[in-house]
Amino acid sequence: MEEQITYKPGLNGVIAAETCLSYLDVDAEEIVIKGYDLIELAQSVLYIDLIHLFLQGSLPTEQEQVSLEKELVQAYHLPSDILAILKQLPHTTHPMDALRTSISTLASYDEQLDIHNEVETRQKTIHLLAKIPNIVANSYHILHNKQPILPREDLAYSTNFLYMITGHVPNEREAAIFDQSLMVYSEHEMPNSTFTARVIASTNADIYGALTGAVASLKGNLHGGANEAVMYMLLEGKTVDGYRNLLYNKLQQKEKVMGFGHRVYMKKMDPRAALMKEALRELATEKGEAEIFEMCEAGEQIMKEEKGLYPNLDYYAAPVYYLLGIPIPLYTPIFFAARTLGLSAHVAEQQQNNKLFRPRVRYTGPRGLHP
Amino acid sequence: MEEQITYKPGLNGVIAAETCLSYLDVDAEEIVIKGYDLIELAQSVLYIDLIHLFLQGSLPTEQEQVSLEKELVQAYHLPSDILAILKQLPHTTHPMDALRTSISTLASYDEQLDIHNEVETRQKTIHLLAKIPNIVANSYHILHNKQPILPREDLAYSTNFLYMITGHVPNEREAAIFDQSLMVYSEHEMPNSTFTARVIASTNADIYGALTGAVASLKGNLHGGANEAVMYMLLEGKTVDGYRNLLYNKLQQKEKVMGFGHRVYMKKMDPRAALMKEALRELATEKGEAEIFEMCEAGEQIMKEEKGLYPNLDYYAAPVYYLLGIPIPLYTPIFFAARTLGLSAHVAEQQQNNKLFRPRVRYTGPRGLHP
Repeated sequence: MEEQITYKPGLNGVIAAETCLSYLDVDAEEIVIKGYDLIELAQSVLYIDLIHLFLQGSLPTEQEQVSLEKELVQAYHLPSDILAILKQLPHTTHPMDALRTSISTLASYDEQLDIHNEVETRQKTIHLLAKIPNIVANSYHILHNKQPILPREDLAYSTNFLYMITGHVPNEREAAIFDQSLMVYSEHEMPNSTFTARVIASTNADIYGALTGAVASLKGNLHGGANEAVMYMLLEGKTVDGYRNLLYNKLQQKEKVMGFGHRVYMKKMDPRAALMKEALRELATEKGEAEIFEMCEAGEQIMKEEKGLYPNLDYYAAPVYYLLGIPIPLYTPIFFAARTLGLSAHVAEQQQNNKLFRPRVRYTGPRGLHP
Repeated sequence: MEEQITYKPGLNGVIAAETCLSYLDVDAEEIVIKGYDLIELAQSVLYIDLIHLFLQGSLPTEQEQVSLEKELVQAYHLPSDILAILKQLPHTTHPMDALRTSISTLASYDEQLDIHNEVETRQKTIHLLAKIPNIVANSYHILHNKQPILPREDLAYSTNFLYMITGHVPNEREAAIFDQSLMVYSEHEMPNSTFTARVIASTNADIYGALTGAVASLKGNLHGGANEAVMYMLLEGKTVDGYRNLLYNKLQQKEKVMGFGHRVYMKKMDPRAALMKEALRELATEKGEAEIFEMCEAGEQIMKEEKGLYPNLDYYAAPVYYLLGIPIPLYTPIFFAARTLGLSAHVAEQQQNNKLFRPRVRYTGPRGLHP
């Protein structure tokens, strides 16, 4: 009989997989991505370079970057049925539900659906990376009775993504900050959604199924929904004083304040949050919106003093997206679009060295009943 | 820093949750369902009684059974958009993909989608149990350019399910055997799909998302696809001799033979398989199809002698479904429809005592690279 291990609720601290993709080094406070420091990457390369890093194992030369971008552009187009299905959904559909249904539907259009070798999975990943931004942006437009904004092949990958969302070509700073936000969301070891994708992939299920499950997971408010919750809180606060009062009130009522703390981190601010904080400072200055930055800092101070908690990525990504003109319900879908990169790499890794996930339980019910 | 535990690939033997729903007692070779022996239940009650057992905590009185059946009947109807979306899908869509997309879409029609309390989850479970058989049967008809077969309110729950699949009202023996097959598929501790559903539900995601992920998982051929694979193997074998040769050939080529062995079981035949074997014997006799039973027994003998492996549920459920006139591509979707009961109960249990699943990894990649 198999050896049974001490039960850890939520698998807290349990090693569930070996991976060469990423690692949260809690002691060094470093997010390791394929050997690099994520923050260093996010300060010096582009999201497209991370795609190359995950798909080819190395950062690209200029030429490789151009040809990867071309490959993505060629896969931008969605099957027309996907748009038709989105039009059929009730307009109250949650954007993450529209995304989940769309990715599930995409499987119907892959003629190599059940082939899971390295070459095919790379191909599917390119298609998912190309199409998911299109789905994210245009499911929103369609559910709001607006015309889809078709992808523009002349724009860079992430610039096109932001363009499809807002309908405006962003300026250089905006484009750079959005690209950086995608990088910091791209991969993060083994959060619930990544674990979900690997658990599903371990049955030899296809990558669409694994990512459909990951969308379902990321939708939960203990996982991906925090960035939206942060923004609604800031809007409710309105001013620095209003926001302070709101937070003190929440703390007094013992309500959870979103955007702070992390199950794995860390005795200081999430380093990704620090990067987005700088981006927010820049954007707020450029746009004459200094107060939102001050509000965020005031909240940071309060949470540190009152709870000893530090901001996580969502806390500063939310106001950045707000100043970029992105509708709040798209924050989590954008998080997912960025994370598609890491998720696909985890699925590929699971396929290459697979063992079916099949844990056991501790039974707490009765025994010996008879009908 | 958290305590790290020895890495068990696939979480083999790791306890991932506490549950009062079911337990595989490997030593006693018993499948415990809410305190009862599953086999004893399957020999003495009906699937509808198991629904009551899971939803209300007890087997129903006659009156309770009638009113539960009525509740289900009232929820049979699908939103017309679901049928329209199914019509829009390419006809090559895999039935499990159609099911995954449909369950994901169902979320759009639940006005209480984000309410996860006990009462609401029970209500959602009733709706899922009522609608999934309809989706399973009619997605198949629609993808084959046929008219949907609408549910019949005058038939018992499982009889109606089989009727929607075949278009014929089954005789008493057929109905009883189909009902029994649903019972033995209804719940089975913590297989990959159940684990997937609990992992997703632990983010506070909704039950549709959790079940969508579970469909994705069950589709994988290391999990739910085995019953279909078994049937194709039997059809390829054609006769007892042909089937013997086929198996010996597969063994010689070191190919995996589906329908045998189980990660958790057991030093003898899966007790659910034994039940389906008896059902097959009865059905084969009634239908003058004795050879298919002999083939199965011959295969059982060979695998025991050559590999020391015993049949699992899929091995005998497949030919039973075949003799019931069920199209082979529906075997896994039916497995899912039956398992909806256990899955929904696990989601409810996770919601009632939740802890986010967030394991760690063992990092095997490089360190110290710089862009």
